[in-house]
Amino acid sequence: MTTRNKILLLIKAASVALLATVSLSAQAAEKVYRLKLAETWGPNTPILGDASKNMAKLANEMSNGRLQIRIDSANKHKAPLGVFDMVKSGQYDLGHSSSYYWKGKVPNTLYFSSMPFGMMTTEQYAWFYQGGGMELMQEVYAPHNLLSFPGGNSDIQMGGWFKKEINSIDDLKGLKMRIPGFAGEVFAKVGAKPTNIAPGELYTSLERGTIDALEWVGPAFDLRMGFQKIAPYYYTAWHEPGSETQFLVNKKTWDKLPKDLQLILETSFRVAAFDMYTQALDANASSWATMQSDYPDIKVRDFPPEVLQTMRTATDELLAEQAAKDPLAKKIIDSQANYAKKVRAWTNISTKAYLNHE
Amino acid sequence: MTTRNKILLLIKAASVALLATVSLSAQAAEKVYRLKLAETWGPNTPILGDASKNMAKLANEMSNGRLQIRIDSANKHKAPLGVFDMVKSGQYDLGHSSSYYWKGKVPNTLYFSSMPFGMMTTEQYAWFYQGGGMELMQEVYAPHNLLSFPGGNSDIQMGGWFKKEINSIDDLKGLKMRIPGFAGEVFAKVGAKPTNIAPGELYTSLERGTIDALEWVGPAFDLRMGFQKIAPYYYTAWHEPGSETQFLVNKKTWDKLPKDLQLILETSFRVAAFDMYTQALDANASSWATMQSDYPDIKVRDFPPEVLQTMRTATDELLAEQAAKDPLAKKIIDSQANYAKKVRAWTNISTKAYLNHE
Repeated sequence: MTTRNKILLLIKAASVALLATVSLSAQAAEKVYRLKLAETWGPNTPILGDASKNMAKLANEMSNGRLQIRIDSANKHKAPLGVFDMVKSGQYDLGHSSSYYWKGKVPNTLYFSSMPFGMMTTEQYAWFYQGGGMELMQEVYAPHNLLSFPGGNSDIQMGGWFKKEINSIDDLKGLKMRIPGFAGEVFAKVGAKPTNIAPGELYTSLERGTIDALEWVGPAFDLRMGFQKIAPYYYTAWHEPGSETQFLVNKKTWDKLPKDLQLILETSFRVAAFDMYTQALDANASSWATMQSDYPDIKVRDFPPEVLQTMRTATDELLAEQAAKDPLAKKIIDSQANYAKKVRAWTNISTKAYLNHE
Repeated sequence: MTTRNKILLLIKAASVALLATVSLSAQAAEKVYRLKLAETWGPNTPILGDASKNMAKLANEMSNGRLQIRIDSANKHKAPLGVFDMVKSGQYDLGHSSSYYWKGKVPNTLYFSSMPFGMMTTEQYAWFYQGGGMELMQEVYAPHNLLSFPGGNSDIQMGGWFKKEINSIDDLKGLKMRIPGFAGEVFAKVGAKPTNIAPGELYTSLERGTIDALEWVGPAFDLRMGFQKIAPYYYTAWHEPGSETQFLVNKKTWDKLPKDLQLILETSFRVAAFDMYTQALDANASSWATMQSDYPDIKVRDFPPEVLQTMRTATDELLAEQAAKDPLAKKIIDSQANYAKKVRAWTNISTKAYLNHE
């Protein structure tokens, strides 16, 4: 072989090696991960539905396009309450929903949305991030091949719309109210008749007297439903003082992502969650202003102290039953109760005192 | 030239071109940006000082090492209240401080930390992100070659420690109190003698009677200062209902960063800010629990309604003076007042009602 030929071969070999290296490292650096997210909400649902859109956009842009997240709303996957199962099985990589929807399946998921007489939004965020809440949530979700992250707060919820004023616990006896979930169990325990009704039938049911009362969310979601036209009493909060949604991640999907993309995804969850909270707060404030000007006859009421105390006792009894049945439930309930006691003592001399100066 | 030689030359040319391309794109993709941040706080300041550390770590990890941020604390740059100037001039790329420190230099920076009788932390975040606050803040900082971002909230502040109980506005006349800034101006207007004293001399000044009262922060920062041992009255909040710190960015530095790194930096600011708030909330709650158990003689007091009303009127008068002098000041003051009115009406029927159920 001539020297020239040797050089030629060397250059050829070097070129091939170089091309292979470039291709490999480009592949590693630029590999695109296409993830699918299923959300409980219908398409274009305001506030709740914005969380996933904001999250996907942020993750995509921070990763320079390496994270591509497709969002399927309920109209597409047809299983609004199947998000847990679809992310668990890997049919979807990600989900956006609310933890307490799974309490029939995994009872301990109940505690990570909002609890009657429990912590308010920022108190609960302090519990999640500083008080051990995140770790407890992973303990509940890990056996199901899932990671769970706070997914945005819809703000403190109102106690609902009532046709008649509630003056004593007797006024709750036999009261037919749309109030699902754990709060419904509390209402049943104090003698009311809780029920669940599809959103599209709520207005007519209340108008025709099929139900006497209902809770929905707060001004931002209630205004467009029109309940204020047919039930004049708007009761203040007790059952969901800070409803948190959740992002779910399939564990196998998570483990496949490089470290930087895991962190970009987790950070995008956090910012989208925080945005959803300020958005909900802003929308509630704006909608309440509209309600006050357009429907000046709305009567805001607090439940009487006796009624609140009875519902609080019922809540405590139901929680004690859960704690007695399951050590992990007890661990979560105790952690929330202890944290709530500590943080509320401070809230009372700070926020509550400040608000009462007016 | 033989065919072989032609091929040889072509391969050579291709190799060189390929190498150049690889080197260029690797440079673009992997270029490391080394930024310097000056913070107002001393080294290892808890909570306030954690914000920049958390931010720098997150930005570094999300960018796969392309953002390297060095943090200089006050012991290093020796200019705790020079952060604005040092970032403006480009001596530092980034800063972490509090907006109201610059009011002597740029009066309209006053409005982006916390205002007497103003919005609480989450109300103010809603104003920043949903109510036009961010845009107004940029309008104030842009002429100084700066971008400004919320940098973490130290939570609602207590009204301070007093040796004697305040029963009427007369008890404030001539009262010597450490209370700097705009709140100090309000106190002066109602007849008190506000002063500023270096942190290291506060305890001794209060103990010896050089001052009759002082405000510092809240339980998390106050506990270690020991004021509870020498001034039994702990007054509730009025002057800083949600003190926000700020990240500052030199505009030229910002413009040099690729889009994805700008977004990673901005997102890291937001997460670090949010973490600082839950951290402050948690630390206040824990420190207040400690204060209650270790110092059971602390007497928490609200200023009497008459005193609060006098201070509120003084605040409004001072703000009206600012608004009359400067159209941008008027725009910010009006924006805050309008948003506060709207959001507080909702806070009152939600959060306040909920807290008053106890």
